[in-house]
Amino acid sequence: MVVEVGILTVSTQCSKGAANDTSGPALEALLCQEDKQQWRICERKIVPDDKQQISAIVSAWSLRCRLIIVSGGTGISPSDVTIEAIEPLFTKRLPALATAMVVGSLTITPFAALSQVAAGVIGQTVVLAVPGSKKGSVENVQQVLKVLPHAVDTAAATEGTRHLHAP
Amino acid sequence: MVVEVGILTVSTQCSKGAANDTSGPALEALLCQEDKQQWRICERKIVPDDKQQISAIVSAWSLRCRLIIVSGGTGISPSDVTIEAIEPLFTKRLPALATAMVVGSLTITPFAALSQVAAGVIGQTVVLAVPGSKKGSVENVQQVLKVLPHAVDTAAATEGTRHLHAP
Amino acid sequence: MVVEVGILTVSTQCSKGAANDTSGPALEALLCQEDKQQWRICERKIVPDDKQQISAIVSAWSLRCRLIIVSGGTGISPSDVTIEAIEPLFTKRLPALATAMVVGSLTITPFAALSQVAAGVIGQTVVLAVPGSKKGSVENVQQVLKVLPHAVDTAAATEGTRHLHAP
Ligand code: NA
Repeated sequence: MVVEVGILTVSTQCSKGAANDTSGPALEALLCQEDKQQWRICERKIVPDDKQQISAIVSAWSLRCRLIIVSGGTGISPSDVTIEAIEPLFTKRLPALATAMVVGSLTITPFAALSQVAAGVIGQTVVLAVPGSKKGSVENVQQVLKVLPHAVDTAAATEGTRHLHAP
Repeated sequence: MVVEVGILTVSTQCSKGAANDTSGPALEALLCQEDKQQWRICERKIVPDDKQQISAIVSAWSLRCRLIIVSGGTGISPSDVTIEAIEPLFTKRLPALATAMVVGSLTITPFAALSQVAAGVIGQTVVLAVPGSKKGSVENVQQVLKVLPHAVDTAAATEGTRHLHAP
Repeated sequence: MVVEVGILTVSTQCSKGAANDTSGPALEALLCQEDKQQWRICERKIVPDDKQQISAIVSAWSLRCRLIIVSGGTGISPSDVTIEAIEPLFTKRLPALATAMVVGSLTITPFAALSQVAAGVIGQTVVLAVPGSKKGSVENVQQVLKVLPHAVDTAAATEGTRHLHAP
């Protein structure tokens, strides 16, 4: 099954061309090397750390992507607004999925404690927010990569999903 | 000490008799095999994935049970509404208890990331929401079984609980 | 760099002199033995389990401390109100930092599941809420001690924090 994916890089520096977006291409490469699932990157964009722009894009993409990964703007500084931008859009929060990313990442570096990752569903679309660094973004998505196909299937199910709950 | 327990199975299929409730009996068996604590199952019911029915029952049971376990309706699909039904009833959220269930369950299966377990207090009653599968429900409760007697005692304490905090 | 720290002990018993505050001095000792970071304890107080007093003090201290640690009032009993007192003050929630404290503490004792720790930012100040027992307070802060200097730096950063995100 082919699944449409949107990857949004959030970084004021990258959006101005003052820095290279390294997390976006790394996430693309990570998904494309999966052979059991056909992820198709249909949306790619870089935006500044701007709450309104982030939520407008994620909201629009949720109508045509089944998975959205937002990378960056998840730190502790006042300029980090990604979580604040996307959480209000969630029709369902997925705290256990976020916990899985954090717990797995903590085994790699204690600095994972400082990235406010998030996971949720918007309509029938699974949305992840991960750190903006190449290393942090890839490491977080890797923690849940194996269950993402199932997550995407279930989020879009309209009935009879019980058999999907215990694979 | 005898503690009154309510076990609520949430499943549209089971409520119609189109599937057997396996998690309810498994949770009963799990609690009854504990010899250090006398859990008494005083309430048992199966309801469909209906937000209003779930919250009405949990709310009523919170007046006569000291522990309520809700099993099912914790997945990612739009029909899963258990968390949304019970979280508004919480007078205190217990995120660390939920984290303990998720973290322990993740060591068994990565699919634990897709079950939105919850834990909280309603008045003086401890409430857990766990997955609807037999395996998932038992595995999640097992993660916290050892601390549940203490949780139930503390939730009902009206004063002088400090000594209970560091057993 | 010298960082101003406030340590607030929440305990009705300690505030009346009916019990000794053991967590406060233990947290002071923990921070003072760090040689890579100069923490300066500039505020110390003991208050009862009173929501209004807790939030008033944390709010005032957030103007002059860069790190605030609140110890006590994080249990399950109705008298525990620390989390409820400080979470509404957070300008940014730091759930991954709280998860790091819980997950680390769970490896020491399963009773860590019953302490509702919290982490967040108020303005430019990092705030942690940890259990009131000497053992629990120290064990929780130890889980994140290594990343606290970076957390404090980033919370106070007004621009160009991206390089700080991937140390
Ligand atoms: Na028993």
